[in-house]
Amino acid sequence: MTTILSIPQGTRDFGPEVVRKRNYIISTIRKTFELYGFQPLETPAMENTSTLLGKYGDEGDKLIFKILNNGEDIFGHAQMAKNAHELGLLLCEKALKYDLTIPFARYVVMNKGKLIFPFKRYQIQPVWRGDKPQKGRYREFCQCDADIVGSNSLINEVELLKIYDTVLTELGIQGFQLKINNRKVLTGLAELVGRPDLMIDITIAIDKLDKIGEDGVRKELAERGLLPQEIDKVIAFIGISGSNDEKLQQLSALLAQSEAGQRGLEELRFVLNSGLSSFNTPPVLDLTLARGLNYYTGMIVEVKAPDSVKIGSIGGGGRYDDLTGLFGLPGTSGVGISFGVDRIYDVLEALQLFPAAAEQGTRVIFFHPGGARLAEVFGYLQAVRANGVPAELFPDDIKQDKQYKYAEKRGVPYIAYVEDPAADTVYVKHMQNKQRYTLTPQELASFEFA
Amino acid sequence: MTTILSIPQGTRDFGPEVVRKRNYIISTIRKTFELYGFQPLETPAMENTSTLLGKYGDEGDKLIFKILNNGEDIFGHAQMAKNAHELGLLLCEKALKYDLTIPFARYVVMNKGKLIFPFKRYQIQPVWRGDKPQKGRYREFCQCDADIVGSNSLINEVELLKIYDTVLTELGIQGFQLKINNRKVLTGLAELVGRPDLMIDITIAIDKLDKIGEDGVRKELAERGLLPQEIDKVIAFIGISGSNDEKLQQLSALLAQSEAGQRGLEELRFVLNSGLSSFNTPPVLDLTLARGLNYYTGMIVEVKAPDSVKIGSIGGGGRYDDLTGLFGLPGTSGVGISFGVDRIYDVLEALQLFPAAAEQGTRVIFFHPGGARLAEVFGYLQAVRANGVPAELFPDDIKQDKQYKYAEKRGVPYIAYVEDPAADTVYVKHMQNKQRYTLTPQELASFEFA
Repeated sequence: MTTILSIPQGTRDFGPEVVRKRNYIISTIRKTFELYGFQPLETPAMENTSTLLGKYGDEGDKLIFKILNNGEDIFGHAQMAKNAHELGLLLCEKALKYDLTIPFARYVVMNKGKLIFPFKRYQIQPVWRGDKPQKGRYREFCQCDADIVGSNSLINEVELLKIYDTVLTELGIQGFQLKINNRKVLTGLAELVGRPDLMIDITIAIDKLDKIGEDGVRKELAERGLLPQEIDKVIAFIGISGSNDEKLQQLSALLAQSEAGQRGLEELRFVLNSGLSSFNTPPVLDLTLARGLNYYTGMIVEVKAPDSVKIGSIGGGGRYDDLTGLFGLPGTSGVGISFGVDRIYDVLEALQLFPAAAEQGTRVIFFHPGGARLAEVFGYLQAVRANGVPAELFPDDIKQDKQYKYAEKRGVPYIAYVEDPAADTVYVKHMQNKQRYTLTPQELASFEFA
Repeated sequence: MTTILSIPQGTRDFGPEVVRKRNYIISTIRKTFELYGFQPLETPAMENTSTLLGKYGDEGDKLIFKILNNGEDIFGHAQMAKNAHELGLLLCEKALKYDLTIPFARYVVMNKGKLIFPFKRYQIQPVWRGDKPQKGRYREFCQCDADIVGSNSLINEVELLKIYDTVLTELGIQGFQLKINNRKVLTGLAELVGRPDLMIDITIAIDKLDKIGEDGVRKELAERGLLPQEIDKVIAFIGISGSNDEKLQQLSALLAQSEAGQRGLEELRFVLNSGLSSFNTPPVLDLTLARGLNYYTGMIVEVKAPDSVKIGSIGGGGRYDDLTGLFGLPGTSGVGISFGVDRIYDVLEALQLFPAAAEQGTRVIFFHPGGARLAEVFGYLQAVRANGVPAELFPDDIKQDKQYKYAEKRGVPYIAYVEDPAADTVYVKHMQNKQRYTLTPQELASFEFA
C-alpha cells in the first residue's frame, strides 16, 4: 500500500516546536485577559447552520463549512434540491463556526437570564473558513477575542486598547501601531460630504488608501457615485494630519454641524485624552481606518505589525451597539478586540522574538544502563521529575553512542548516565558546552538543569 | 424576531466556571505529560475523508461527521449518487476527526523522515462522533492522549501507567482502579480453549462480565459458537483470583503450552514486578479486561473511576504493534494511553475535589468613583494588576449599592473603593467576612487578595 497521504488544503499539523511557540503567544494573551478580569468561554465547533447563515454577507455564507447530516435521510433530501445552495441547506443542519463573535452573541442571548452584566468574556478557539488558501491565510485558524457586553462606558475601550499594548509589549514587539478611529466620525464625514446615504461606500473606499493610494480612492469614490466636489471633501478629510490633538481640533471645526460627528469626537477625546492609562505605544488616530464590518458603531481599532515585517494587521475590533439584536435581544451594547495568533506568530518568527524558554521541553535524557542498574536509574529519573524537571529515560537497551546521537538530534540540553563500577554516582553532561558533572543521587535530585 | 436559539444536539457551551475547572484537569495532565518527556502535537479538526474511513469499523464509519465540499459542483455530484453512503463520499472530501490516534498515525507516516524515534507525543484536542447523545456521551468531546512510537521497550508501559497514577493522585482521586491485562494472554486463552479462530469473539464476551454477569457471558459465548466444555474453560480462566503474583502463577501453569500466552505473561511480569516504579495505586491484573479495539497487541490498560461515583472508565490504552501499517509504514510499534476529560470532570464534581483555586478569576472589583477621581482609581487598578492580581473596574458610573450587588453576584472575594474626602486612601473589603482594610496606594499595590 503506497497511499500518498495529505491533510486538507489550508489546514496544518503543528509539531512540538510550533505548538510550544503558539502556546507561548496564547498563554501571554490569556494571562492578560485574566488580569483584566475577562472570563473564559468556549462554544462548540459546530453551530446550527441557521445561526451562522446571513451574518457574514453573501460572500461569507459561501465560505461557511457545512456538516452533512448523519443518517439515511440525506439521500431523499438530495433529490429535492434545485441547486447547490438548496442542497447545502437540506443536507446540513450544522456548520463549523466562522468566527467567535456570532457564537458569543448567540451564547449571550441564550443565557441572558443567567449572565451578570456587564459580562466580560474571552474566547480562544479555532474557526473555519473556506477561503482560498494562500500565504498567511488558512482554512482553520485560531482566534483570540475579548468582549464586554452590557456596558456603554468608554472605560472599556481604554481597557481593551491597554490589553493590546500590554500583550504586544510583553511579547517584545516594538514598532507596532495601535490605530483607532470612530464610526460616528465617519458618519459625520458622510454628512459633511452631503452624502449620508453613501456612508458605507465612502468608508469602503477610504479603507483602501494604503493599498490603492489617493488616486485609487478618488477613482473608487467616483465609481461609487460621488461627485468631484464631494470627493474633494473626502480627500481633504483623510488628509488631515498632525498629532492626535491637532487632528481632533481640525475635526471639531470641520464636523461642527454633525451631531454624530461631534459625539464621535467626544468619544475619541475620552479614549485618547482621559489620562486613564499610560501606554508603551500610545494609540494613534487614523482617519482612514474604517474596518469592513458594518456592525461597528463607535470606536474601531486595528493593530498593524511593525513595518519591517510586511505582515499587515495583527488584530482589530471595535464597539457594536446591537450585535445581539440579530438573535432577538436588542439594545445590548458591546465592544471587543481580537488577536490574530497566526500573524503574531509570523511577526515573532521574523523578528526572532521567541524566547528560548518558549521552545523548552525535556531538559535531560537518561541513558538506558542495560541490565542490572535499570531500576536504580529509573529511581534517579523519578527524583529529577519530582523536582519539576521534564526528564526522559531512553527506553531501549542499545549502545550508548546511539543513545547519545538520539539525545543530540532531539536537542535536549543535558544527558545523564551511570558507569560501572561507580555505584551511587550519576554523570550529567551539558550537550553544548560539554561540561560534565559527577553527582551523588542527592545532588542529582536538586540539580538545576538550566 | 423571536427565534428559539439552540446549539447542535450533543454539543455544549462551556461557561467561565466550567472552562476553568476543565483547564485545571487539562493542565494537570499536560504538566505530567511534559514531565515525562512527551511533546505536544496538534492536528487539524478536518482530515481527508479517505484518511478516516475504514479505520473504526462499519459502525464507526457511520458516526464520522463529513464536511460538505464548497462550491457549485456538489449539485452535479449529488445527482450521481445511488444511496446515502455514495452521496457522502461524492459530496464530502473532508471529515471531522473521530479520535486522536488515526490522525497521529497519519502524522507519523507523513513525517517519518523528519521525526526522531522513539517519538513521544501528547495531544489534547476535541474529537467529534455522531453518537446518539446521552448522559456522559457527547458529539464533541476532548481527548488527551500520550503515545510512544518506535520503541518496543516495556519501560514505556511502566511510564504510561505511572502517568495515570501521578495525574489521578494529583487530582485527589482516591479509590480508582488501574486495571491491566495483555492481549497475548488472551490469545493464549483462545489457544487453551482450542478456538484460536474465535479469539476476538471470546474477548468481546468476557469484556462484558461486569455488565452481564457470568451467565450472560456463558450465553454470549454459546451464541458466538463455543461448545459447553470450551465455555467452561473460559469461565475458569476469568475466575482466576488472588494477588497479581498468584494470578500470574496460575496462568503460567495454565498457558504453559501457548507461546503467545507465555510471552504475554513475561510482559505482565515486567510491568508488574520490575520494581521500576512505586505506585500510589498499583496496577491490578484483570483477566476480563479485553478492550474492544482490535489494533491492540500487547499490554492493555483501563482506569476505572472509584466505585462510589458509578462513572465507569475514565481512561484506557494499550500497545499496538502496527498502527502506522494502515498508512503504509509497517513495523512501527507503539503504546499509548488516553484520559477522558469529561468523565474525570464528573468524578471531581461528584467527589467535590475541585480546589477553590481552580475556579478563581477576578480577585477584586474596584467601584467606579464617579467624576473627578476616575483617573486616580484607574491608577490603583493598574498597580494591582502589575502585582499579578486579576482585577476589574466597574465601567459604568452608577450608584455604589448597585455596584456592590454586581460584585456580590459575580462572587469576587474583594471589592475596593475610594470615599470623599479621604484622598490617597483606598478601602478594600472582603466580601465574605466583611473585614475592611484602609490602605495607602503603596499598601494596596502589594496587598495580597488571598
